[in-house]
Amino acid sequence: MIKITLPDGTEKKFDKGVTPLDVAKSISEGFARNVISANFNGTTLETTSSLNEDGSLILYTWNDDEGKKAFWHSSAHILAQALEELYPGVKLSIGPAIENGFYYDIDLGEHSISEKDFKSIEDKMIEIARGKHTFEMRAASKAEALDLYRSQDNEYKVELIENLEDGTITFCDHSTFTDLCRGGHIPNTGIVKAVKLLSVAGAYWRGDENNKQLTRIYGISFPKQKDLTEYLNLLEEAKKRDHRKLGKELELFTFSQKVGQGLPLWLPKGAALRERLENFLKAAQKKAGYEMVVTPHIGQKELYVTSGHYEKYGADSFQPILTPKEGEEFLLKPMNCPHHCEIYNAMPFSYKELPKRYAEFGTVYRYEQSGELHGLTRVRGFTQDDAHIFCTPDQLDKEFKDVIDLVLYVFGSLGFENFKAQVSLRDTENPEKYIGSDENWKKAEDAILNAAIDKGLDYVVVKGEAAFYGPKLDFMVKDALGRNWQLGTIQVDYNLPERFDLTYKGSDNELHRPVMIHRAPFGSMERFIAILLEHTGGNFPIWLMPTQAIILSISEKYEKYSQKVLNLLEKHEIRALVDHRNETIGKKIREAEMNKIPYMLIIGEKEEDENMISVRKHGGEELGMISVETLSEVIENEINKTLKTFK
Amino acid sequence: MIKITLPDGTEKKFDKGVTPLDVAKSISEGFARNVISANFNGTTLETTSSLNEDGSLILYTWNDDEGKKAFWHSSAHILAQALEELYPGVKLSIGPAIENGFYYDIDLGEHSISEKDFKSIEDKMIEIARGKHTFEMRAASKAEALDLYRSQDNEYKVELIENLEDGTITFCDHSTFTDLCRGGHIPNTGIVKAVKLLSVAGAYWRGDENNKQLTRIYGISFPKQKDLTEYLNLLEEAKKRDHRKLGKELELFTFSQKVGQGLPLWLPKGAALRERLENFLKAAQKKAGYEMVVTPHIGQKELYVTSGHYEKYGADSFQPILTPKEGEEFLLKPMNCPHHCEIYNAMPFSYKELPKRYAEFGTVYRYEQSGELHGLTRVRGFTQDDAHIFCTPDQLDKEFKDVIDLVLYVFGSLGFENFKAQVSLRDTENPEKYIGSDENWKKAEDAILNAAIDKGLDYVVVKGEAAFYGPKLDFMVKDALGRNWQLGTIQVDYNLPERFDLTYKGSDNELHRPVMIHRAPFGSMERFIAILLEHTGGNFPIWLMPTQAIILSISEKYEKYSQKVLNLLEKHEIRALVDHRNETIGKKIREAEMNKIPYMLIIGEKEEDENMISVRKHGGEELGMISVETLSEVIENEINKTLKTFK
Repeated sequence: MIKITLPDGTEKKFDKGVTPLDVAKSISEGFARNVISANFNGTTLETTSSLNEDGSLILYTWNDDEGKKAFWHSSAHILAQALEELYPGVKLSIGPAIENGFYYDIDLGEHSISEKDFKSIEDKMIEIARGKHTFEMRAASKAEALDLYRSQDNEYKVELIENLEDGTITFCDHSTFTDLCRGGHIPNTGIVKAVKLLSVAGAYWRGDENNKQLTRIYGISFPKQKDLTEYLNLLEEAKKRDHRKLGKELELFTFSQKVGQGLPLWLPKGAALRERLENFLKAAQKKAGYEMVVTPHIGQKELYVTSGHYEKYGADSFQPILTPKEGEEFLLKPMNCPHHCEIYNAMPFSYKELPKRYAEFGTVYRYEQSGELHGLTRVRGFTQDDAHIFCTPDQLDKEFKDVIDLVLYVFGSLGFENFKAQVSLRDTENPEKYIGSDENWKKAEDAILNAAIDKGLDYVVVKGEAAFYGPKLDFMVKDALGRNWQLGTIQVDYNLPERFDLTYKGSDNELHRPVMIHRAPFGSMERFIAILLEHTGGNFPIWLMPTQAIILSISEKYEKYSQKVLNLLEKHEIRALVDHRNETIGKKIREAEMNKIPYMLIIGEKEEDENMISVRKHGGEELGMISVETLSEVIENEINKTLKTFK
Repeated sequence: MIKITLPDGTEKKFDKGVTPLDVAKSISEGFARNVISANFNGTTLETTSSLNEDGSLILYTWNDDEGKKAFWHSSAHILAQALEELYPGVKLSIGPAIENGFYYDIDLGEHSISEKDFKSIEDKMIEIARGKHTFEMRAASKAEALDLYRSQDNEYKVELIENLEDGTITFCDHSTFTDLCRGGHIPNTGIVKAVKLLSVAGAYWRGDENNKQLTRIYGISFPKQKDLTEYLNLLEEAKKRDHRKLGKELELFTFSQKVGQGLPLWLPKGAALRERLENFLKAAQKKAGYEMVVTPHIGQKELYVTSGHYEKYGADSFQPILTPKEGEEFLLKPMNCPHHCEIYNAMPFSYKELPKRYAEFGTVYRYEQSGELHGLTRVRGFTQDDAHIFCTPDQLDKEFKDVIDLVLYVFGSLGFENFKAQVSLRDTENPEKYIGSDENWKKAEDAILNAAIDKGLDYVVVKGEAAFYGPKLDFMVKDALGRNWQLGTIQVDYNLPERFDLTYKGSDNELHRPVMIHRAPFGSMERFIAILLEHTGGNFPIWLMPTQAIILSISEKYEKYSQKVLNLLEKHEIRALVDHRNETIGKKIREAEMNKIPYMLIIGEKEEDENMISVRKHGGEELGMISVETLSEVIENEINKTLKTFK
């Protein structure tokens, strides 16, 4: 008998050789039908694998990331079989699961594949899937494995096997297909009900441009046709919401070849949007006791040698800026923290004056290869909503909680309701990897965990993931399209206070080291606005909209009444515009829709006569003929619903 | 007879050989007593020189810059005589008048001079002055002049004479003293009534460090003892108001050796001050139809090659920033205009959409030699309150007027009441020196002149001082210590629209070039704050003060009442603080005085009982026991008196 421990802590006894599927059935037949992969004592395995010792078992369904991984990895096998059957003589290399789906890199030999071939490959994959072939792992010796692929002339698999350490090598068989594989599959091909190939591209073998270019085919698969349809709709929606597309349509930002790649230029509407976001955060930060500072965008090389950034990033970054005569070397600042440490160092502080909380919308520059630049999410210059808190170790607890409050306020006011936290602690078995005393680490880790519990966060703890200089808490936010984004890191730092010799005078009259917290709720203005655009499709919470209402008059006759309505709206502090142009009302509405303006106020004879406005919401909902006061209340309520109160 | 034309246009006839002094006497004896120098047909001369042809004569008194120049130049002669008498064998080189006083560079030979010798030199100068020796010009041949100085072994004068073109060389004699001199002296030494030597320093002959180091003695002199006393008081006051000193005392900014010289770090109070100034200007700019943009702090070298800045500044500036692999070259931006041109180019505009007014608080970086850096007035990185207006030639007139309104609003609200404007036009005799059509230049120059007249500016027109790319208007502001600062340039530009190929579609459906206006009312935030600090001694207009009122409680017993007063003040939107510390009221007042807080609210038993506050103004004036409401009205009135209304 062996003892199996399940994730909820239950322990069950089974005969040796029991399979994960058997264990699942012992829980419920219904559950077992959904189990598609398993993990035993930290190793991924098949649901049909035998368990021969005591251990912890996790059973995965499609709803688990690990379940999806097994599903897509298995689908890659099916893709490979379909390709072998349709294009005889192709050579397989590798085919992993990725975040959304899978790919396979193959050497097509004399064949070629384009998008128009996708349908026939998909059909072949579904045909294979319907065969309900089981995935079966089979051990082989290195010699056997090499023999197999040498006989097929497959230099890729040969190279992979040669690089494997000696010992047992495994194959996975299904139907007539065999692939070199470490395992982690679904029970049989029949579970795959829907398949979609997404793209085809060139990919160098092992990512090295000196190697042969293979063909990479990307695909995705699902256990239900409905899931695929939903996914394709999401893809379609994501394309519509692409922040680069919306940024252009809404005239938010642009790029210039002359200024340089990855360096956004903010157009008036985008700059105004940034400013509203900055003012929103500034107001909350002011309440939370932050003080703004302003520091230059360059610093002497010595500054970054002191901070350690030069050693870490120097060579791969923007190169030093020399002065013409004096031989000084400056660097574009990649981070604001060294500058803020120097601000802290400008005056002596006693423990009574701490914490100091220095905030700056600090623009930093980091080199990225041009091929990796992407809209506003991957740029070479960006503005962090940065702040550094300098406090005593005893103040960490409260400071951490306050920062979480601030981050939650930001998420809440901007419509990010779906998020998780990850607490990264040190690896207590290797304390030598970390800077800072044991006592301080314990204080900091306790502070973070207390804060996470106290604030009711949905969080996971990952040991060993802390940086060498301190533990941290990261937020993962899910957007409206179900994609995850890391937003809002809070990081404890024992390193920079040491390197910059930061001190404060304690109640004992001795000098002590403060602790530093790095934090940025938005992360960067650029990336945050990109995510917000894609999350909302440009329909920001109304308090953030550039124009909250637009007055569309039926004809120029109503210019005077339009102006009266505008003045009234402005008195209610509503950001409104008048579309004065001599255009049809239809065209005015279409353009207001495209500009995502939440409220359209249509004005004609009847409206003027009755001193009212006819209101249409973005998207088409009609509020009918109402007074400006009523509309102001509607908008005010909507603002109060979205813009939370901070403290 | 010759005809003499005076500056007011009057023409008078005199016998040949008449002197400027004679002409002055013909106007009035009183006036003649004050005339100390003259200019005839563009040449500076003595009041005793003979006039032998028709011409224009300007007569200068001490109140004219040219009068002061003659006064100080003559004083340098007196200094040189005193030095020759006190230190036999010294060799003279040059001794010009400067902005405030004069200096003389001499080779002291075996002698040395320090500040403790100043008194005896000053006494000797006054003794010479009292001799009322007349300054007399005397012509000599080059050979004679060389003979004189060769006989004295004076290699400096010899070098000067050798470099003079052949022709008449002049000496100026007074008392027993002779100096090589072009002229421009006061009538006699007796007019100099007060003398003060200010400093002594080393100075290389002809400013070349390969030459011998001479001794430079700086001094200043006045026609009345009272003037000197006033000047010395001003110097003392300037030292107290030095923005570097105040910046430290008020904790506004700091510098860090690690970050680098000339790169200010703005501390919380300084950053808040900047932000208030920025918000003040932003609000006015919004009313004036400006739109904010945000652009990066670097740009590709190509951008500045296009703009022409690279050719002009490249070699002497911060050197290019290379990327590690891709070989791109970026530059720290020395100006925002190229970036704003690229923003203009991001979208096509029709004439109906112009003007576009793009504003940015844009931080730029310009290399300065470390020896030339000075506090916030000469830095390597600074933030311009920059904006560029792109308009049609026909719109220039209105735009220029509107910009002047904005500048005057800024000056008015910040207490700069004493200013003049200079209009720089092109040299119409050399049209080939300028870019842009004759018609457009005429439009632009007319626009500037119209605006200057229309706005009632006190202005002078200087022909030939325009930049090659357009005419401009500069404001010279006199501060509380009588020093002049250039603030608020407005510049028309035909060059960048050409270089960046900027266009708009005209009513004729053809593409046209817009005109560009560069303008910055503050100039740079750094320099402006420095000037404002020195102008006000840190006692800013109350609307700008970081803390407008501070509550000083007699003891901790009144904490609750203090909080109540604070809340009331905040309700009236007054920025107030409570000094909670357990310190004596005397110490609290002293510190509030040092922090220049305009209103101190003292709270004790009587105040709490009567629900009042005792108010003391910065500087000591007592307002007695009044209610918070009364104080709020006082402060509100003071704000309304200083912060002007814009449009």
